Amino acid sequence: MENIINYKKGQLILLDQRNLPYKITYKKLLTAKAAAAAIGDMVVRGAPAIGITAAYAYLLGSREKDFKNYKTLENYMKNVSEKLLASRPTAVNLKWAVDLMEKTLRADPELLVDKIRDNLFEKAESIKYSEIEANKKIGQYGSSELKKVFGEDGNLKILTHCNAGALATGGWGTALGVIRSGFKDGLIDEVYVDETRPRMQGARLTCFELKEENIPYTLITDGMPAHFMSLGNIDAVIVGADRIALNGDTANKIGTSMVAIAANYYNVPFYVAAPVSTFDFNCPGRKDIAIEERSHEEVLFINKKQISPEETRTVNPAFDITQKGLIKGYITEKGVIRNTDELQ
Amino acid sequence: MENIINYKKGQLILLDQRNLPYKITYKKLLTAKAAAAAIGDMVVRGAPAIGITAAYAYLLGSREKDFKNYKTLENYMKNVSEKLLASRPTAVNLKWAVDLMEKTLRADPELLVDKIRDNLFEKAESIKYSEIEANKKIGQYGSSELKKVFGEDGNLKILTHCNAGALATGGWGTALGVIRSGFKDGLIDEVYVDETRPRMQGARLTCFELKEENIPYTLITDGMPAHFMSLGNIDAVIVGADRIALNGDTANKIGTSMVAIAANYYNVPFYVAAPVSTFDFNCPGRKDIAIEERSHEEVLFINKKQISPEETRTVNPAFDITQKGLIKGYITEKGVIRNTDELQ
Repeated sequence: MENIINYKKGQLILLDQRNLPYKITYKKLLTAKAAAAAIGDMVVRGAPAIGITAAYAYLLGSREKDFKNYKTLENYMKNVSEKLLASRPTAVNLKWAVDLMEKTLRADPELLVDKIRDNLFEKAESIKYSEIEANKKIGQYGSSELKKVFGEDGNLKILTHCNAGALATGGWGTALGVIRSGFKDGLIDEVYVDETRPRMQGARLTCFELKEENIPYTLITDGMPAHFMSLGNIDAVIVGADRIALNGDTANKIGTSMVAIAANYYNVPFYVAAPVSTFDFNCPGRKDIAIEERSHEEVLFINKKQISPEETRTVNPAFDITQKGLIKGYITEKGVIRNTDELQ
Repeated sequence: MENIINYKKGQLILLDQRNLPYKITYKKLLTAKAAAAAIGDMVVRGAPAIGITAAYAYLLGSREKDFKNYKTLENYMKNVSEKLLASRPTAVNLKWAVDLMEKTLRADPELLVDKIRDNLFEKAESIKYSEIEANKKIGQYGSSELKKVFGEDGNLKILTHCNAGALATGGWGTALGVIRSGFKDGLIDEVYVDETRPRMQGARLTCFELKEENIPYTLITDGMPAHFMSLGNIDAVIVGADRIALNGDTANKIGTSMVAIAANYYNVPFYVAAPVSTFDFNCPGRKDIAIEERSHEEVLFINKKQISPEETRTVNPAFDITQKGLIKGYITEKGVIRNTDELQ
């Protein structure tokens, strides 16, 4: 899948994921502020894709004014960083990407502003392409892990929650990258897709990607995984991540931890697939991960129709935490690890 | 809540639950066939309410023709029973009610047809009112159990899945009956309501009932219970049941077992509230419970809009089985039991 996040001549063009699978439309962004709003509104979503978008957004920021010198640029960019970091609080890739861009900005204060912009452009490009490269390695390591655990016979049925595909990562995908690779390797023959209320990323985005790749899939509601596990219909669960703490606790889309607990109960291996940029070694464990609370209208309205009586109170945590003990392995571009120590 | 299931002079009038909470409309039924279709289409739903409706539907059947004698009536009614039993396969209350009506029909072949019809009417009425009476006792026993387990301090937050309220039972409610009683007794101060995809009985019906009773409630998606349990926000889970097997395995609305497994993981007590009519002593365990598969469009469309790409395959099991070991107690009109033996 192409054209998810594209930068060309001062314009950041995002595939607008809010309209999928109904319409393929693009959103053109000219400023860092507009890009931060697009991240907040989920025009683009998925931890790695948010990181890549933030890198280009930072680049946009550096081009917003006719900065005389490093000092004025650097001063202006503090505000840009702040806006970007505030756009979504849970995915650590955003901070990771902004940190890398800031380092690039500050690498040599002697440089001319135009040269700094060139460097920022190259850094953003390298973040994008190295993340996609990482995804492909994640796919290969994940597929090898499945072969190791289940043998080469194939016929595996894999469950995934939300969308950790090309759309979430700028290309290929993490959890869906493993599924793509496993399918190509003849190991997987069906994918169960949780619809992922409230925003339906499973129904809208994961099904869209699987259909494009001709990988057989079945859409289920978020209450169904345990039922199909109890019937022995699901061999493994693979999900993405928005932040992995030092102790291995993992933030991912709301509903993930229900699936992990059910998988644990039915002895179905549960994997997290994520690039190293998703690991936050400054975050000791689940209590230190801020969970974003999104608009209550996302729960209360579906296609603009209210699903519950007037004045119904709702809550809308966008993520939950899956405890380390429920996770069989973390599939990264450096291999499948069992403990985060192995990455440090 | 009144007028959920009402029989008057040869007409069975059902509150059409498909239109709630948007519109209060009624469906008038004149034949057993129409009533069976209304059960299948979920005009009325909830195991006890299905049982009561089936009893009246049976009565309608007995009035459909000018039967000359017991023999012709009895012969005709075999077909009526068959149609009713086929309308929904999982809730055992349907079979329980039809069995009681058949016994009433066959009690005395010497009786005139009109007298048999009078007896059938009285039996249907007694099924309805004794079920509502049972609900109120369930509420009291449930509230006592909460007091025993948590003390009299109150402030309890209870999670429920689907709708096991007045709408599901013809009056008061089972799980929601316990919540009503617990609220009146000052023990409960908030209810978390799973929206219950695909048919949204939680969002539409449970929220509607709780609002009418001024019991504070919060609507959440089906992926959220584990998150709020992990925060210590949920003190207990109470759900209804569609069939309870001899060994205690319990069929209830799809998604229930996910909640039970999460509750078990977080040490949150999980209760099933159901009248004795829901216990099926002829059913040894979970493998013997038929799970109804409903139309795939219920998953694929929300408010007539398709939520996933064209040609997406879905499945739609209407129920799942919660294993006995996950259930702290069964709240019945005969008290809170820990094992089904206590009822036999």
